[in-house]
Amino acid sequence: MIIVMAHDATEKDIAEVIKRLEAAGFKTHLSRGVERTIIGAIGDKSRLAEIPLEALPGVEEVIPILQPYKMASRAFRAERTIVQVSEDIAIGGERIHVMAGPCAVESREQLLEAAAQVKAAGATILRGGAFKPRTSPYSFQGLGVKGLEILAEAREKYGLKIVTEVMDVRSLPVVAEYADIIQVGARNMQNFDLLRELGKIDKPVLLKRGLSATIEEWLMAAEYILSGGNFKVILCERGIRTFETYTRNTLDLSAVPIVKHLSHLPVIVDPSHGVGRWQFVPAMCRAAIAAGADGLLVEVHPNPPEALCDGAQSLTPKTFAETMEELRRIAQAVGRKL
Amino acid sequence: MIIVMAHDATEKDIAEVIKRLEAAGFKTHLSRGVERTIIGAIGDKSRLAEIPLEALPGVEEVIPILQPYKMASRAFRAERTIVQVSEDIAIGGERIHVMAGPCAVESREQLLEAAAQVKAAGATILRGGAFKPRTSPYSFQGLGVKGLEILAEAREKYGLKIVTEVMDVRSLPVVAEYADIIQVGARNMQNFDLLRELGKIDKPVLLKRGLSATIEEWLMAAEYILSGGNFKVILCERGIRTFETYTRNTLDLSAVPIVKHLSHLPVIVDPSHGVGRWQFVPAMCRAAIAAGADGLLVEVHPNPPEALCDGAQSLTPKTFAETMEELRRIAQAVGRKL
Amino acid sequence: MIIVMAHDATEKDIAEVIKRLEAAGFKTHLSRGVERTIIGAIGDKSRLAEIPLEALPGVEEVIPILQPYKMASRAFRAERTIVQVSEDIAIGGERIHVMAGPCAVESREQLLEAAAQVKAAGATILRGGAFKPRTSPYSFQGLGVKGLEILAEAREKYGLKIVTEVMDVRSLPVVAEYADIIQVGARNMQNFDLLRELGKIDKPVLLKRGLSATIEEWLMAAEYILSGGNFKVILCERGIRTFETYTRNTLDLSAVPIVKHLSHLPVIVDPSHGVGRWQFVPAMCRAAIAAGADGLLVEVHPNPPEALCDGAQSLTPKTFAETMEELRRIAQAVGRKL
Amino acid sequence: MIIVMAHDATEKDIAEVIKRLEAAGFKTHLSRGVERTIIGAIGDKSRLAEIPLEALPGVEEVIPILQPYKMASRAFRAERTIVQVSEDIAIGGERIHVMAGPCAVESREQLLEAAAQVKAAGATILRGGAFKPRTSPYSFQGLGVKGLEILAEAREKYGLKIVTEVMDVRSLPVVAEYADIIQVGARNMQNFDLLRELGKIDKPVLLKRGLSATIEEWLMAAEYILSGGNFKVILCERGIRTFETYTRNTLDLSAVPIVKHLSHLPVIVDPSHGVGRWQFVPAMCRAAIAAGADGLLVEVHPNPPEALCDGAQSLTPKTFAETMEELRRIAQAVGRKL
Repeated sequence: MIIVMAHDATEKDIAEVIKRLEAAGFKTHLSRGVERTIIGAIGDKSRLAEIPLEALPGVEEVIPILQPYKMASRAFRAERTIVQVSEDIAIGGERIHVMAGPCAVESREQLLEAAAQVKAAGATILRGGAFKPRTSPYSFQGLGVKGLEILAEAREKYGLKIVTEVMDVRSLPVVAEYADIIQVGARNMQNFDLLRELGKIDKPVLLKRGLSATIEEWLMAAEYILSGGNFKVILCERGIRTFETYTRNTLDLSAVPIVKHLSHLPVIVDPSHGVGRWQFVPAMCRAAIAAGADGLLVEVHPNPPEALCDGAQSLTPKTFAETMEELRRIAQAVGRKL
Repeated sequence: MIIVMAHDATEKDIAEVIKRLEAAGFKTHLSRGVERTIIGAIGDKSRLAEIPLEALPGVEEVIPILQPYKMASRAFRAERTIVQVSEDIAIGGERIHVMAGPCAVESREQLLEAAAQVKAAGATILRGGAFKPRTSPYSFQGLGVKGLEILAEAREKYGLKIVTEVMDVRSLPVVAEYADIIQVGARNMQNFDLLRELGKIDKPVLLKRGLSATIEEWLMAAEYILSGGNFKVILCERGIRTFETYTRNTLDLSAVPIVKHLSHLPVIVDPSHGVGRWQFVPAMCRAAIAAGADGLLVEVHPNPPEALCDGAQSLTPKTFAETMEELRRIAQAVGRKL
Repeated sequence: MIIVMAHDATEKDIAEVIKRLEAAGFKTHLSRGVERTIIGAIGDKSRLAEIPLEALPGVEEVIPILQPYKMASRAFRAERTIVQVSEDIAIGGERIHVMAGPCAVESREQLLEAAAQVKAAGATILRGGAFKPRTSPYSFQGLGVKGLEILAEAREKYGLKIVTEVMDVRSLPVVAEYADIIQVGARNMQNFDLLRELGKIDKPVLLKRGLSATIEEWLMAAEYILSGGNFKVILCERGIRTFETYTRNTLDLSAVPIVKHLSHLPVIVDPSHGVGRWQFVPAMCRAAIAAGADGLLVEVHPNPPEALCDGAQSLTPKTFAETMEELRRIAQAVGRKL
Repeated sequence: MIIVMAHDATEKDIAEVIKRLEAAGFKTHLSRGVERTIIGAIGDKSRLAEIPLEALPGVEEVIPILQPYKMASRAFRAERTIVQVSEDIAIGGERIHVMAGPCAVESREQLLEAAAQVKAAGATILRGGAFKPRTSPYSFQGLGVKGLEILAEAREKYGLKIVTEVMDVRSLPVVAEYADIIQVGARNMQNFDLLRELGKIDKPVLLKRGLSATIEEWLMAAEYILSGGNFKVILCERGIRTFETYTRNTLDLSAVPIVKHLSHLPVIVDPSHGVGRWQFVPAMCRAAIAAGADGLLVEVHPNPPEALCDGAQSLTPKTFAETMEELRRIAQAVGRKL
């Protein structure tokens, strides 16, 4: 960590900073420039985070040098993590997996129809929300446990794995009982109590990036799960909030190569939430694969104009099937399979 | 709601939209312009939200006309809500209340000292976190129930009320037992399960604006609590995330008059998180009162350089006392008391 | 245009709005809902923009229905515009063109070397700044006219076309004399005097999206050029400013399919400025082509650690050549040539 | 400057960085931590900016320690700059000045009426645009030189000074001839050619913050003017672009104390553009003064619903006069005059 002293910091101010750092067990080194004095501190960064040096007189800025995450970093683990979902499905390997299905489980008929359609087009994992986070208390909130049962029936019938969202620590046990991959939504990326519980179980977790989370904060959220002992974390870019209003969010595809540079964890992309308008979803699916994503999460509904949630961003089964064809060609162009 | 048809929408497309709307019980009216046809829909907006018209062929855009919140709106309640915290403390009336204290309860000594200091300077409510949401799993996570007990002791000793954060539905009962005002942090603004639980209890709730929440989403979060039956909601602006990196967040003071225009709920400001550097907190306290805030939430620590969290943005007791003097003059200038 | 009246608007307020609209030559239609009255206005939108209806009593919101751009829209021109740069180079057709070269022309040697290298790898257009917009007055500001002469020499020698930036109306004549494509930088996207001048000449213009420009504002900037009579406009997405600090900007690849949906103009992508770190440029080049971009603008420097500007985001000639190989495969996968 | 090496940087990489720095005349010092090696560089920062160290192998991050602006910094000039506009009007001293008037000069009658009204309410400087930057080429573009003549007439008649915008280097001479303060709009904050010209003249310049400019970039834009020799620079916060759509921009009032901390230049606030809705302008005027602003720039129109631009954000003369009364009380509360 580097402590930059203000241009009018006194010798006493400088001495006080050094005293504090050394009392906390750090080695320090002082460097006097023409305009600024800076102090470097070497030692255990996690203890350093607790000393609010900015509150000391004469301190202008404290600049962290090390990334705050450990277990999520490539320095901790050089080889790529491959998250084994089942015997034949692994996220992060050569094969790209597409998770598709409706925003919400609305009925047995709707979900089974969607499952048959996405399976036919080549998806290997079925998505569908049973517990739904909705901006309005007056919107459809999901079927709850009944929805999970329907998902399980579809899994059985079509040989798909299922990914579904957990919203609350209280429903985690039942979600974990049914799901093959437990999804943490963007709004819960920093629900630390939930993350801690997910660190204690042995199930793959799909961790969506928060609406306004930096990549560093996202990896810190993963760190909560990893440090609890669960290494089966799949990251999911799903768009960030920006000033642009034409799209629901701005899909940050640069997050894909960056996460792969900083971390060993696999990363997939959700273009449906990323853009929020179905017309642009196929193009962003193609771009995500070209950027190196390990998978996709795509909303597909048997009849989008009847959807109880996110109809505007859902693909029809026909468009989804056509998109899958395009994606196979892109996957091959980047040396992968789909 | 207004449905704007694409310039190349067919008569069939238009007829289909009208058919769907009328089937859902809406009255429609059609307006053909030179370049676009638009369809207006009149009826119960909450049902309309469920029809994903954007997914229909020929629909270019769906524009909501009504605000999605009801009970939080001034149309629902014209007079201002005054949240009674205790017999003599009410938020939203003529008197401005300052809630002050450390980021976290670190020890009995620290908190009692802080309580004495903020009381002496004129604060009426003591803040202090017992359960702390921290970006890093390696940071101090709060004293938990022990912290709540220390807060209760300070309340007793100094005649202050206490505001403290709840992070998780599981700890809500114990937090509600101790707190006079239950704080919902920015990261939990859309933790809908927690909001629903808060709607069922009879305690004032301080609802912080999410890092990237629009004012409308913030009022929708309040709607979750109000629609559950708890009308004691105090909104708290605490800065939003923008591209500016010099400050921790960008304090959006325009939210103060806007919330008062759109809603009957009282609104306070947290300049400490808003700017993240103590040097600028006094100026933003003054500005918040001048903008019409009903109160402030300010971080004050007996010794900021020793703080276990947020030391950089905490005022010393001395600076806090000086700031309170300035605030009294501003309050008077805008016709209020402090 | 739709005028939404406040819930407490009076009959007099409503009558006044209608009076104003009709006086301005608009047809109006009134729709009274349960909670709101709305007024629709049909007529020439450009005149409507001049009536500040929001300033009238009782008006809550004014919602534009039509896109404010005309000539840039697909309603104006259904077929795609192909910008002919020279006899054999056209932007917006089946063939994707890559424009590559250094950020700035630094010397004759540097530019000629770069030109040889990008030509060998398959670029058809050479980029290089002679006039450089720099955040700091103390940074290298470009070689000016001397730089243009060097570019012309490289064009001659390697059979490349050249794209270079104009910063100021005063230097437009000389830039236009040398350049095959005149670049308008992100900071000048709303330099309306410059745009007006570009509307009067007969040269292709590469219009970069502003750092915080919405897609609509970007198309409005194009409208300035088109409405002046110059239809040779190529749009260029180069990243927008968001809260994320790891990247220089956030490359908004969804802008590619969206621009193609809203406009007939071709669109290319500049991943170098979009991410600002060379490591991630190849992945974003691939993603841009997969998303449907008509071309790329890529910074390549013979020796990035010696570059006088943007060294951190410049590819080495070797990495560029490898990337071009990958791009050919992606182009083929999406049915195009490169 | 601090160079952080990647965790897998080799000794050769480290040696190369040091070699480059020393060749450029810097003193270096090496610090080997447990996980990272960092290199400090001491010397003339402006030369350092030219070495793209990030492009060297093994370099993870380059962290600047010094602010890139010099003449705009308080290190350069400790006492506050007071910009003398005329014998009796100075910006940055004890007295707060309010600049008020319409968005655009629309006619002689309109401007003279506005001038009389703002003068009566206590404004000392008249604002009004003669050259108008408009998002749409079809909007009113200003009266040009005719508008400047009308402004001059109003100055004469009412004893006000005038502030008006320059958009283009070509019209700078005529604007400078008429204006007492030359305004640089947000869109031109990084029009470096224009800034350079403003550095050569001896007139006060009002430099608005760009829509997405960081405080540092804003001060760098000021540096262009200062380094040219013109020290009469007044900064103006006018809102930044964020995700919030209810307001036109988000007024960043924390910029006021921050600019005063980092720079010696005076800073004023434009709440009209900051929020974009007249209803909230008075509250933000009060907040700006309470935050420490040296002045205000406020849009006032004799009849906002007839305004040719920005009617929605213009105060009526009556509301403006009432606001001025409130501002006098706030000014007094913070120890200043208005």
